[in-house]
Amino acid sequence: MRHILIIGAGRSATWLIKYLLEKAETENLHITIGDLSEELAAKKTQNHPRATPVAFDIHNDEQRSKYISGADIVISMLPASLHYEVAKDCIKYKKNMVTASYVSPAMMELDEQAKENGIILMNEIGLDPGIDHMSAMSVIDSIRDKGGKVLLFESFCGGLVAPESDNNLWNYKFTWNPRNVVLAGQGGAAKFIQEGKFKYIPYNKLFRRTEFMEVEGFGRFEGYANRDSLKYKGVYGLDDALTLYRGTLRRVGFSKTWNMFVQLGMTDDNYVMEDSENMSYRDFTNAFLPYHPTDSVELKLRHLLKIEQDDIQWDKLMELDIFNPNKKVGLANATPAQILEKILSDKWTLSQEDKDMIVMYHKFGYELNGERKQIDATMVCIGENQTYTAMAKTVGLPVAMATLQILNGNINLTGVQLPIHKEIYQPILKELEEFGIVFNEKETKYMGYNPQNVAS
Amino acid sequence: MRHILIIGAGRSATWLIKYLLEKAETENLHITIGDLSEELAAKKTQNHPRATPVAFDIHNDEQRSKYISGADIVISMLPASLHYEVAKDCIKYKKNMVTASYVSPAMMELDEQAKENGIILMNEIGLDPGIDHMSAMSVIDSIRDKGGKVLLFESFCGGLVAPESDNNLWNYKFTWNPRNVVLAGQGGAAKFIQEGKFKYIPYNKLFRRTEFMEVEGFGRFEGYANRDSLKYKGVYGLDDALTLYRGTLRRVGFSKTWNMFVQLGMTDDNYVMEDSENMSYRDFTNAFLPYHPTDSVELKLRHLLKIEQDDIQWDKLMELDIFNPNKKVGLANATPAQILEKILSDKWTLSQEDKDMIVMYHKFGYELNGERKQIDATMVCIGENQTYTAMAKTVGLPVAMATLQILNGNINLTGVQLPIHKEIYQPILKELEEFGIVFNEKETKYMGYNPQNVAS
Repeated sequence: MRHILIIGAGRSATWLIKYLLEKAETENLHITIGDLSEELAAKKTQNHPRATPVAFDIHNDEQRSKYISGADIVISMLPASLHYEVAKDCIKYKKNMVTASYVSPAMMELDEQAKENGIILMNEIGLDPGIDHMSAMSVIDSIRDKGGKVLLFESFCGGLVAPESDNNLWNYKFTWNPRNVVLAGQGGAAKFIQEGKFKYIPYNKLFRRTEFMEVEGFGRFEGYANRDSLKYKGVYGLDDALTLYRGTLRRVGFSKTWNMFVQLGMTDDNYVMEDSENMSYRDFTNAFLPYHPTDSVELKLRHLLKIEQDDIQWDKLMELDIFNPNKKVGLANATPAQILEKILSDKWTLSQEDKDMIVMYHKFGYELNGERKQIDATMVCIGENQTYTAMAKTVGLPVAMATLQILNGNINLTGVQLPIHKEIYQPILKELEEFGIVFNEKETKYMGYNPQNVAS
Repeated sequence: MRHILIIGAGRSATWLIKYLLEKAETENLHITIGDLSEELAAKKTQNHPRATPVAFDIHNDEQRSKYISGADIVISMLPASLHYEVAKDCIKYKKNMVTASYVSPAMMELDEQAKENGIILMNEIGLDPGIDHMSAMSVIDSIRDKGGKVLLFESFCGGLVAPESDNNLWNYKFTWNPRNVVLAGQGGAAKFIQEGKFKYIPYNKLFRRTEFMEVEGFGRFEGYANRDSLKYKGVYGLDDALTLYRGTLRRVGFSKTWNMFVQLGMTDDNYVMEDSENMSYRDFTNAFLPYHPTDSVELKLRHLLKIEQDDIQWDKLMELDIFNPNKKVGLANATPAQILEKILSDKWTLSQEDKDMIVMYHKFGYELNGERKQIDATMVCIGENQTYTAMAKTVGLPVAMATLQILNGNINLTGVQLPIHKEIYQPILKELEEFGIVFNEKETKYMGYNPQNVAS
């Protein structure tokens, strides 16, 4: 019997647990699922004979030692900042570890110790980061194997609402942490390279410089730039690339209206508003507009943002009820961003039967035998409901598959690793296809940085 | 003989030293002027028999003790962060102290000790803060003395170029620290009250929500909001005020074009640009614009910012030469803000004979005997040249006058003080008039928060 310890039984662990329980018999596994809430852990195991739900507090040294030392491999589904504690114990007890989070500088520092102890700390093997790395490296390696040179790499990913559950004007609902959506793009200019030129977009223009793309069967999307696209140069070895751009996908039109919140100052998370608790939604909106003795809040906002009366932007704002004088914010000492999140959550929360959708889009421009070519690779995954979401599936399955591969001795790397090596990504990408997570690759004309698609 | 120690002999000390040297004989003063550069200190004393220039390093404990213990009163013209060291020694040796800077939290903590030792730590007695406090409190107290209640207080100040030296399209030159001009408005939303409503303006809209005002004989100006207008409620005791607004003055049209730099991201001081040293001005501008294989940098900028071909905004940008491919930035590891400062300094540096201009504008709305009234008070001060600037005059004279008043026993307060009490501001405002620093007060109709002047 091989023992797997999963720490954290939240939303993103649903598919992970399901996959491992289904394999438990044939693979001879026993799975211990630890969560602060033993009840939640128990709910996810559903009385499976090969699973044990336990109460687990990461800050409890005794619990941590006990369960980690008793496992053969550890999966941490905790918030990213807590992986470090787990990793240290994994080194101590010489246990392999798998997470879906970005490698933190603290985690990186454990690389040598992990190698000395012969264990792998496998990170960034969820969706984004995770499937993005694997699917990108699969194409990049195939281009290189033919002797090609990658000149352009653009990559976009978005967590969206599936077409069948898409029933608001924004074509958007919160499929993950709403706070991250409200704060997206803050904390520094977006930085990338286009045709060899470094480019910088400040926050206040981020949502006005989107790029459009089409996914067969799913229509058009738009992408806005992520904060730092340059680190992928090193990670993927793209030293010859003239264009490196990573972005976030939304349905067309989202960014233009979202920019209104940015322009008004509603996404600011750096100060607390006076008497936020007793503010109405209308008061909140009015706080970002000049005083006027008679003009309505509506007119002042239209005027400030130059919204014409027949503009769909206006309907999108109305849909959110931001002018309602009777709805109270009800949050004490709240920042504008926290209040906006509350207002959006009223309308953008998925119902239990709503389906989410993950879309990924890569572009690879390359030169082979003196000729320039391009491959576009796209993946769409639609969830079943709010328990078996596409997000949980695309995050959880790669984690689960990597865990089994390591356990079965098919991955023999040690130290802090990302899934950018063939021995990791090939079997996992192949197995993901069985679950409908498939990339469609299409050869197209080399576009360079596609000038026709720049919206600026 | 009374001994005055002045620490710091920089630009802002010129008028201060001039005033005290002129009074030295009649007031029986001896003035020691300490600066890191003894040469600079000597230049300012001009061999005056009652002045001694000395080399002075604030971080040298021995020097600090020696000169402070030997003085009757100490003036610190150092950067604000260094006053605390001076203040501690002033307490130790029981010496009064005067500065033109805002009271820091560290300085505030010395209040009790200063009182116990019977000394005054007189702060915020330059221009802004300084003359603004004194002139505002003078009107506020006169309204109160008549039994009136202040309902509205708006106050604006700007350091500008005098009309006779105003020869660029921006109607602006750097009269003080250029870095502060480039970074103005950053670090948090502007916060104020208009007619009882709290209002917040994010940085990206700050320069688009200006207010206009006219100064007789000097034409029109515009004001943008300072970061925090609310603290004046407590300082001035304006608990009934429905409107509290502090702002910075520029010539009309400045803010609209400045906003372009904000929108492009050129004022960002939070990251370093790649290869900034070898960048041309044109490369710098292009870094904030989308890539295009054939469109010019000029067209891309016009398009992004929606500048029509006959718009004066365009000429203002051209005047700064931001599209020049031959001028090099020449600054290693520079932030956008540092590079922009360099570009602006090429054009906005005052020549030795250029004159600067200080403009201050207060509005006081009040209720007296059931009637609402308003007083507007304005002050304009024009410099002589780049040695005897209006800035040095308006900062230095109140410091010098307060020093003499304290020395002569006319101010008997102790502890950390601001010039908001009659015994301080009355004699100083009166004496400032002799130097042409005069407020013109005008009774007008009560406008409330003046809706006709809102540009939004």
